[in-house]
Amino acid sequence: MTAAPRPGVGLDALPLRENLRGRSAYGAPQLEVPVQLNTNENPHPPSPELVADIAAAVSDAAADLNRYPDRDAVALRTELAAYLTGQTGVSLDVDMLWAANGSNEILQQLLQAFGGPGRSAMGFVPSYSMHPLLAAGTDTEWIPVERASDLSIDIDAALAAIAEHRPDVLFVTTPNNPTGHAVDHDDLRRLLDAASGIVVVDEAYAEFSPSPSACVLLAEYPTKLVVSRTMSKAFAFAGGRLGYFAADPSFVEAVLLVRLPYHLSMVTQAAARAALRHAEETLASVALLADERKRVTAVLEEQGYEVLPSEANFVLYGPFVDAPRAWQRYLDAGVLIRDVGIPGRLRATIGLEHENDRLLQVSAELAAEEIGPQLEEKR
Amino acid sequence: MTAAPRPGVGLDALPLRENLRGRSAYGAPQLEVPVQLNTNENPHPPSPELVADIAAAVSDAAADLNRYPDRDAVALRTELAAYLTGQTGVSLDVDMLWAANGSNEILQQLLQAFGGPGRSAMGFVPSYSMHPLLAAGTDTEWIPVERASDLSIDIDAALAAIAEHRPDVLFVTTPNNPTGHAVDHDDLRRLLDAASGIVVVDEAYAEFSPSPSACVLLAEYPTKLVVSRTMSKAFAFAGGRLGYFAADPSFVEAVLLVRLPYHLSMVTQAAARAALRHAEETLASVALLADERKRVTAVLEEQGYEVLPSEANFVLYGPFVDAPRAWQRYLDAGVLIRDVGIPGRLRATIGLEHENDRLLQVSAELAAEEIGPQLEEKR
Repeated sequence: MTAAPRPGVGLDALPLRENLRGRSAYGAPQLEVPVQLNTNENPHPPSPELVADIAAAVSDAAADLNRYPDRDAVALRTELAAYLTGQTGVSLDVDMLWAANGSNEILQQLLQAFGGPGRSAMGFVPSYSMHPLLAAGTDTEWIPVERASDLSIDIDAALAAIAEHRPDVLFVTTPNNPTGHAVDHDDLRRLLDAASGIVVVDEAYAEFSPSPSACVLLAEYPTKLVVSRTMSKAFAFAGGRLGYFAADPSFVEAVLLVRLPYHLSMVTQAAARAALRHAEETLASVALLADERKRVTAVLEEQGYEVLPSEANFVLYGPFVDAPRAWQRYLDAGVLIRDVGIPGRLRATIGLEHENDRLLQVSAELAAEEIGPQLEEKR
Repeated sequence: MTAAPRPGVGLDALPLRENLRGRSAYGAPQLEVPVQLNTNENPHPPSPELVADIAAAVSDAAADLNRYPDRDAVALRTELAAYLTGQTGVSLDVDMLWAANGSNEILQQLLQAFGGPGRSAMGFVPSYSMHPLLAAGTDTEWIPVERASDLSIDIDAALAAIAEHRPDVLFVTTPNNPTGHAVDHDDLRRLLDAASGIVVVDEAYAEFSPSPSACVLLAEYPTKLVVSRTMSKAFAFAGGRLGYFAADPSFVEAVLLVRLPYHLSMVTQAAARAALRHAEETLASVALLADERKRVTAVLEEQGYEVLPSEANFVLYGPFVDAPRAWQRYLDAGVLIRDVGIPGRLRATIGLEHENDRLLQVSAELAAEEIGPQLEEKR
């Protein structure tokens, strides 16, 4: 055996692209702790019936694993269209639906087709932390626009920024991660009317929200609007990696030019279709999580915390005297939440009742120790 | 229900990137015909035992589908390292292995890290048709260098082109698709010594070839060499979408900066690990296919065709008076092969014995009708 050249020569020895030098890899810590409330997963595991259906579907598909999958995933997209039609009340068909390995791949494909070198993408920050990373990965200039002091979108400032920078791609996340805010359709129309390029409304958390989907605006803005979704959150399918978008059929034609051929495996297509067949049962957990979100919010407020109004399956709250120190205290107590880099605030995913109880217990301790909210620091 | 805006507004109504305008989507036709010899799949379906093992593995994994997968796929990469160590005789470990959704995603990540705007990639054409498309998708300048008249790499011309253009990424496909040629290590060393950037040796078909893997050169060229592989071909796992590379650990660090977080689903990781457990049984089919390749080659030559020397699971042969017309004749007879755009030549994947018999039968008919090889046109 030839000896392998370990340890490595180091990144500096490689002719890495200049704009990647000094960067570090994305990643929420993947730690094994009793209570994981850091990545906005649905805490309800798949039912035994769903697991059995997935296994059976994969077993059927696996008989042909030596063959390439349906490159255009027509059956899966047809079923996603049916689901989304039911969920949004907007009639959608297979030609308007596109699917990929997670909404990250969806957004990357849109940036490859409509962003890229010499083009720009704008978002209202703080928002989904992958938007700027996906822009960087596709050499799209990233233009962050700060939100208002309450972390909702400042629409007038947004319109001014759009007029000034004329971004090729505009990201509007609703409900927004990590703040939980939803954008109403009057505001969305103002953004769409002003937009110089395409508008990607990122609805990763839509099922947790009572607000109507931006899909109702697709007919009005066929050349601008793309609504992206994921099965990771409400569908409890984070491990299955399935993102999708709804838009005018021309947007599907556009991403066909940049997608990797056979990007969706047979196994992914089969598993996602099985999960869609169980949509009703899975989405029942969404109502439970919305109730828990109300409870967690109420208790945190009783404890003296400020909680942003959330329509998603997480809450952003504070103020903490020292958010990184508070984050570590939660972790030491077996509760993993997320420090998203907003001074004095932390984000907690809504988990199962006993997990939320544990979160609230630690929150109470921090409040008592004045690591948590201190009244004089509150607005 | 709101009426959906169908048909679409058309691609021209969208602000698509300029370099994508007028392009058409990649794609070998996905047609249902009795004998499919067009995409270099392994014709041997997975055994019932393998299908059962995949279903069981996916069922186990599915219990956690509400959680994100292991972002770094450590278990899968460890097992790929063990497999590749056994297959190549080069000691490799998890730090030197990276995996993604098919080798297309592997190559895209390498181009994102080492190519991109202002950088270039070179390949020796005709070769894998996705190389220029992946370059375009990452805004990497594509520099094609023509092969010699026998379609092997003209090493002197290659060295001159490298010196002239100094590409950031050099693709060397061995065995080459669609010609079947392997590149020997003396030639590979000359290319590596001359290379100005990284060298991606694309070994998608390596298991079909008796030639040693470029992995034996990794210790010598740690800052330049990446060896990419796929489970699509020899492993009969095209539907599962699993590509990987072996390189100095620093290359793994590099792609960590551009990969999409959680790019490999739990289901893909579980299915690929199951397939690796059955490597010995699956790879037994490789020997059968190599024998069939020899038989098909001999019979085609008896029929008057020229067949390029192939170390892969396909043959490129001709000359045909009119290759597109001959391709259609094969299709009309229920045999789907590939017109890769080389005048007078067609590429046929080696299938099961009865499939190859059918291919040879149609080939004989075309030869008899002088649509196939005509002696006066042969070199």
